[in-house]
Amino acid sequence: ELQKLLRDFHHADIAEILDELDLEEAIYVIKLLDSETTADILMELDEDNREKVLRNLSSKEIADEIGELDTDDAADIISELPEDRQHEVISHIEDEEHKAEIKELLTYHEDTAGGLMAKELVKVYDTWTVAGCLRRIRGQAKEVTRVHSIYVVDKQNRLIGRLSLKDLIVAKSDQKIEDIYISSVDSVNVHDDAEDVARVMQKYDLEAIPVVDNNQKLLGRITIDDIVDVMKEEAEKDYQLAAGITSDVEADDSIWELTKARLPWLLIGMFGGIGAASIINGFSDAMLKFPALLMFIPLIQATAGNVGVQSSAIVVQGLANDTIDGSLFKRLLKEFALGLVNGLAIALIVLLISHFAFHTTYLESLTICIALISVIIMAAIIGTFIPIFLDKRGIDAAVATGPFITTSNDIFGILLYFLIAKAILGF
Amino acid sequence: ELQKLLRDFHHADIAEILDELDLEEAIYVIKLLDSETTADILMELDEDNREKVLRNLSSKEIADEIGELDTDDAADIISELPEDRQHEVISHIEDEEHKAEIKELLTYHEDTAGGLMAKELVKVYDTWTVAGCLRRIRGQAKEVTRVHSIYVVDKQNRLIGRLSLKDLIVAKSDQKIEDIYISSVDSVNVHDDAEDVARVMQKYDLEAIPVVDNNQKLLGRITIDDIVDVMKEEAEKDYQLAAGITSDVEADDSIWELTKARLPWLLIGMFGGIGAASIINGFSDAMLKFPALLMFIPLIQATAGNVGVQSSAIVVQGLANDTIDGSLFKRLLKEFALGLVNGLAIALIVLLISHFAFHTTYLESLTICIALISVIIMAAIIGTFIPIFLDKRGIDAAVATGPFITTSNDIFGILLYFLIAKAILGF
Ligand SMILES: [Mg+2]
Ligand SMILES: [Mg+2]
Ligand SMILES: [Mg+2]
Ligand SMILES: [Mg+2]
Ligand SMILES: [Mg+2]
Ligand SMILES: [Mg+2]
Ligand SMILES: [Mg+2]
Ligand SMILES: [Mg+2]
Ligand SMILES: [Mg+2]
Ligand SMILES: [Mg+2]
Ligand SMILES: [Mg+2]
Ligand SMILES: [Mg+2]
Ligand SMILES: [Mg+2]
Repeated sequence: ELQKLLRDFHHADIAEILDELDLEEAIYVIKLLDSETTADILMELDEDNREKVLRNLSSKEIADEIGELDTDDAADIISELPEDRQHEVISHIEDEEHKAEIKELLTYHEDTAGGLMAKELVKVYDTWTVAGCLRRIRGQAKEVTRVHSIYVVDKQNRLIGRLSLKDLIVAKSDQKIEDIYISSVDSVNVHDDAEDVARVMQKYDLEAIPVVDNNQKLLGRITIDDIVDVMKEEAEKDYQLAAGITSDVEADDSIWELTKARLPWLLIGMFGGIGAASIINGFSDAMLKFPALLMFIPLIQATAGNVGVQSSAIVVQGLANDTIDGSLFKRLLKEFALGLVNGLAIALIVLLISHFAFHTTYLESLTICIALISVIIMAAIIGTFIPIFLDKRGIDAAVATGPFITTSNDIFGILLYFLIAKAILGF
Repeated sequence: ELQKLLRDFHHADIAEILDELDLEEAIYVIKLLDSETTADILMELDEDNREKVLRNLSSKEIADEIGELDTDDAADIISELPEDRQHEVISHIEDEEHKAEIKELLTYHEDTAGGLMAKELVKVYDTWTVAGCLRRIRGQAKEVTRVHSIYVVDKQNRLIGRLSLKDLIVAKSDQKIEDIYISSVDSVNVHDDAEDVARVMQKYDLEAIPVVDNNQKLLGRITIDDIVDVMKEEAEKDYQLAAGITSDVEADDSIWELTKARLPWLLIGMFGGIGAASIINGFSDAMLKFPALLMFIPLIQATAGNVGVQSSAIVVQGLANDTIDGSLFKRLLKEFALGLVNGLAIALIVLLISHFAFHTTYLESLTICIALISVIIMAAIIGTFIPIFLDKRGIDAAVATGPFITTSNDIFGILLYFLIAKAILGF
């Protein structure tokens, strides 16, 4: 009865329901349905839940599920298993071709084109006729859910062009492929970075892209649905990093998982705060002579943090989109100018407020204003420099915004403030 | 010669080159090439640059470009023009059908399915035969760059199913469409939110989705390439909002544009800093008796900011993914527990450091620890409450993270700190 009920649902919807159920109930449903349906459901489950479900299936059962999946999804599921189970599951896959293809895919890094591609694709040789092609496609296409493009290869399996199904339908049946194929075909190398593949597919509005090796031999095909998932995950990861959250958590995760993701950054911020306390401690005698200056510590700190996060976010985004070029010096010069403009605007307002509302002396007001301008410029430069520096070292610049920048700017901002106060007020 | 050189480039690449050129040079190139090529280039230009280029073309020239574009892109370009020019350009479009379709598309809001859809699609009636269909598609398909799905409608133009080109090729030519079409077809309503369309297409791995009106009549089709752009823009906008940057700017924009995007949030942060100064000012006499407490203001402030940003970012993301459900009270309770766990961990470390490194008295240490825990809990609750509150009022929750949360937490955090100090130390 449940079987009948679930038959009308899309596997993505069933997965959503199972994600809400207890593990035992979820496993009950999965064992109840045939592996053709459950294979797709498994793919759509939340990663944590999938791991738990797989732990409760035998290697044979997992192999049956995997037999129903496209090679890219099959390889992804196997790669999530513990090493010893991987071999067991692979040995249970019956279709030898499927097995070999999955084993090949497992050799590529998950963040590369090879880690995203599937072996399922429709390819034809340039020497074939349109009629022969259509016959052949009727055969190949059964295994390929969506055809998108037909790839044209030469005898050495080198990618030389493409054809759309539409082109094939519009062509006359005795025409040769070599006379009608489109020779300009975008492709990516199997070792290309996943984010670069996403950039290419977005730029050229592609629904699928062929993957080749260094000799231009056709290895597989990446489809846009998987790229959409990559883009979404990347965006969420960067958003979380900017907010000081590591690892992929959601609002509904457990307190323990959320703490694991959040506490590390809070500790970094804490050490920044302790650093700031040491600086204030170092200047404490002098500060007690000018208590008005203490009032503006939060303002200095907040401004440094905000400017730093703004600058770093723009740079991180520019690096992700590959739109940052030109010299580092020029970019820092621009941030200097930008900091100066913003700093002057804010310092002017603060000058008026501190003078009229807080009755600071002229020298104190001057200190606050010069400190604000300097701190804004410093924060803009640090916020720009750190992501670019990390990027040049091959570290993901996305970690370098949010709490990371805020914490460094807290310390440097307060230090700069006191040094300027010392220079102007001479304590 | 330049014409020949550019012929081999993809329009997206030419657009990238033009984005780097002077306006005059860009216009020179655009006038040089035929409108079939330049129409696509125009679509790929940076919005600011496109606006400038269009200002230098006559309404007739723009209409010629638009004649070459798909209806969705044509409507987008027209909607970017000033109102009076819109009418002029439309009146110059020669193809009456194209004109009527563009006018229809202009009536939909840009952030809805209607604002994303194109009128170009391939549809067939359920009463046709496969052979008749193929004939018809050979005709219709010339206008439709990529076919994806063939939509099946009844006599009232109501969407009743779909077919893939593959299904059509595999079927026998005398079969009726009504016998072979797939009746389960995802569709979206023309007034659905663009982000909801993106969610549906991502969930079901679709490359195209038909758009219907309230009576299920087929109006148009949305393709994944435009959804990829929507997702990218949304992610970048949210990332920038979280970093305190309004409006869509890039690292290479002018200092003036960057200042416009950044200064507003800095001013909000500034008023927060002034608020904090007032609070410190209000407690200044008491504080001078316990100068050790002043040292920890930056720590309190930094922690409140970091926790608030973490909490709000998770909620904002959950709201965007529609994964936030359940009662508000339960969610706040969870944040309370989470804040307590994180707060205890951090307070313990700070207790040791303040006691051994800064030699604070027992009561001072107690004050700092209790304040830290309270501030962390408060920040977690504020960070959770504000986005949910805004979302319920129909305001985009994405504005409620970054500087917005940081600023409110600066003020409330410092106030709470002093109130707790007052209660414990009794000044
Ligand atoms: Mg993979
Ligand atoms: Mg695109
Ligand atoms: Mg496009
Ligand atoms: Mg796939
Ligand atoms: Mg990234
Ligand atoms: Mg993002
Ligand atoms: Mg999770
Ligand atoms: Mg539109
Ligand atoms: Mg998907
Ligand atoms: Mg998928
Ligand atoms: Mg389009
Ligand atoms: Mg949004
Ligand atoms: Mg711009």
